Amino acid sequence: MKIIADAFGGDNAPLAVLEGCRMAADKLPGVTIVLAGERERILECARKSEISLDGMEILDAPRVFEMDFDPVSILRENKDTSMGAGLRALADKEADAFLSAGSTGALLVGATLIVKRIRGVRRAAIGAVLPTAKKPFLLLDAGANSECTPEMLENFALLGSIYSARVLGVEKPRVALANIGEEANKGDSLRQETYARLKENRSIHFIGNIEARELPQGACDIAVTDGFTGNMLLKLYEGMGKMMKGNLEALFKRNVFSYLGAAMVLPGLKALKKQMDYKEYGGAPLLGINGVVIKAHGSSNATAIYHAVRQAEQCVKSDMTETIKTNLMKRSEP
Amino acid sequence: MKIIADAFGGDNAPLAVLEGCRMAADKLPGVTIVLAGERERILECARKSEISLDGMEILDAPRVFEMDFDPVSILRENKDTSMGAGLRALADKEADAFLSAGSTGALLVGATLIVKRIRGVRRAAIGAVLPTAKKPFLLLDAGANSECTPEMLENFALLGSIYSARVLGVEKPRVALANIGEEANKGDSLRQETYARLKENRSIHFIGNIEARELPQGACDIAVTDGFTGNMLLKLYEGMGKMMKGNLEALFKRNVFSYLGAAMVLPGLKALKKQMDYKEYGGAPLLGINGVVIKAHGSSNATAIYHAVRQAEQCVKSDMTETIKTNLMKRSEP
Repeated sequence: MKIIADAFGGDNAPLAVLEGCRMAADKLPGVTIVLAGERERILECARKSEISLDGMEILDAPRVFEMDFDPVSILRENKDTSMGAGLRALADKEADAFLSAGSTGALLVGATLIVKRIRGVRRAAIGAVLPTAKKPFLLLDAGANSECTPEMLENFALLGSIYSARVLGVEKPRVALANIGEEANKGDSLRQETYARLKENRSIHFIGNIEARELPQGACDIAVTDGFTGNMLLKLYEGMGKMMKGNLEALFKRNVFSYLGAAMVLPGLKALKKQMDYKEYGGAPLLGINGVVIKAHGSSNATAIYHAVRQAEQCVKSDMTETIKTNLMKRSEP
Repeated sequence: MKIIADAFGGDNAPLAVLEGCRMAADKLPGVTIVLAGERERILECARKSEISLDGMEILDAPRVFEMDFDPVSILRENKDTSMGAGLRALADKEADAFLSAGSTGALLVGATLIVKRIRGVRRAAIGAVLPTAKKPFLLLDAGANSECTPEMLENFALLGSIYSARVLGVEKPRVALANIGEEANKGDSLRQETYARLKENRSIHFIGNIEARELPQGACDIAVTDGFTGNMLLKLYEGMGKMMKGNLEALFKRNVFSYLGAAMVLPGLKALKKQMDYKEYGGAPLLGINGVVIKAHGSSNATAIYHAVRQAEQCVKSDMTETIKTNLMKRSEP
């Protein structure tokens, strides 16, 4: 299996990408990493930081897609960037998956225009997996589409259901609509119309509205929302997790007794910190694209990149794209 | 100073309201509590639970405004409910403030139609104060208006600035627009148009867009958003706080060493739990109403009600309503 990594996407590229890919190459047998980006710069970074590129390939792409570029330019003026070239190689079936920690907008537009959508998909959505007190849940759309219609949200519910059941292995995943109250008439017109649609949709297991306070309790398997709200929730989740980690660290750094206290709960403390760390959750797939495309966190370190590669591997192994295709067709039949 | 409490608002009414008001009556000299609700039921609850009503008054109102009532009905068919009668008494200047843990929608409509808006205010907004790693910040609108225009968000920024500076005592409060990216062109059209307006507004100290992950870091004093997004953020904040508390408790309940560990960090642990507990933050004022109206959390216990009374007292003491009036006029002058 070949997985292309955008060597120049993200705040810590290319070093974190190279380090993370090295971890992946060592730990994931059967995965060949292809680093997309300017060959000379990749080799130089590897040499300087003494990272072996053994067993990896390079997809030479002379330029970098900068954050302030117009996303649509990835089709023409910027098709020779690491992101543009990587997506093109995926579309041409030269690899099985592509991942990037670069611009979300460019990745979305590039994936949609170059790799294309699966037939029957209105818009691709970012599916983020988030921790809860029980098992994790899927939040989508986590940031691909700022303005959504009820039809789009219904489509996301279906995409999420297939991904959750077939790739994440959740049995009969519970779909909820993220809203400001439980009753059917709550929220803005987008929520009210979406509620009516989801309620009638027999291809999903809709459990009604969910308030944001219930999300960390694991009250649903899939939370459906527009990309604006989803992105706000995703980032607040991340920010609260960070504050929590900071608070815990501060708690145990007060005095010698606190140090002793920390030592006594160390295993639990480590598990707790790990639970709240987005880096453990890897990237988020672009659901609805005709190929495996993973968005890694912009500030990914090596561990986060490693987990994003691992997630790409899982998506390929579970045949995510074909599974979505087949199931979309099946569920759309009368 | 007279503060009316809706004795029948909230999940734990009337008991929690009576207990919280008793605490307030004992701890806040100069505050007279007026309990709004059916006299007999209030007296019966007080008798059964042995709560002294010494020093308190009762505003007899025979009915309760149920959660599924149409909010607008508070004006006519339901004006004799505890919420309707309380708001009427506030409008008639028989008291200085009104608080309720009942239906947000009814409280908003009732406050707007009965107590009325301050001149120059487009819509009242709920201002919620949330904890951060540093000092708390004001989130508005936290749930009053699901669908907003750029003009409304600009108005919220102004209301929030006055409240933050004059009531919360923040010097030159930093206003940020809650958005999915830092750049001016990020977000949906509502965010883009609001950004342009806030940037030009010389009456506020606008520091640009803020991503949700920065909120718990205390990166702004006021986060402006529409009521739908604000309510989602508020409730996720609450839910994450709850998960955090649960995790901490579980961490220290594993074995005898964990108990010892907890004992060694007890003061810090208590402070941390307190920091994350919404009950410590009392209620949220309806900003822009021509009188002090406080929305307490629907599931308020006695402590939360006490803090909501305390907050009402602060708003009255700082002359919130007049301050907003004067400043709105001043800032609207050319």
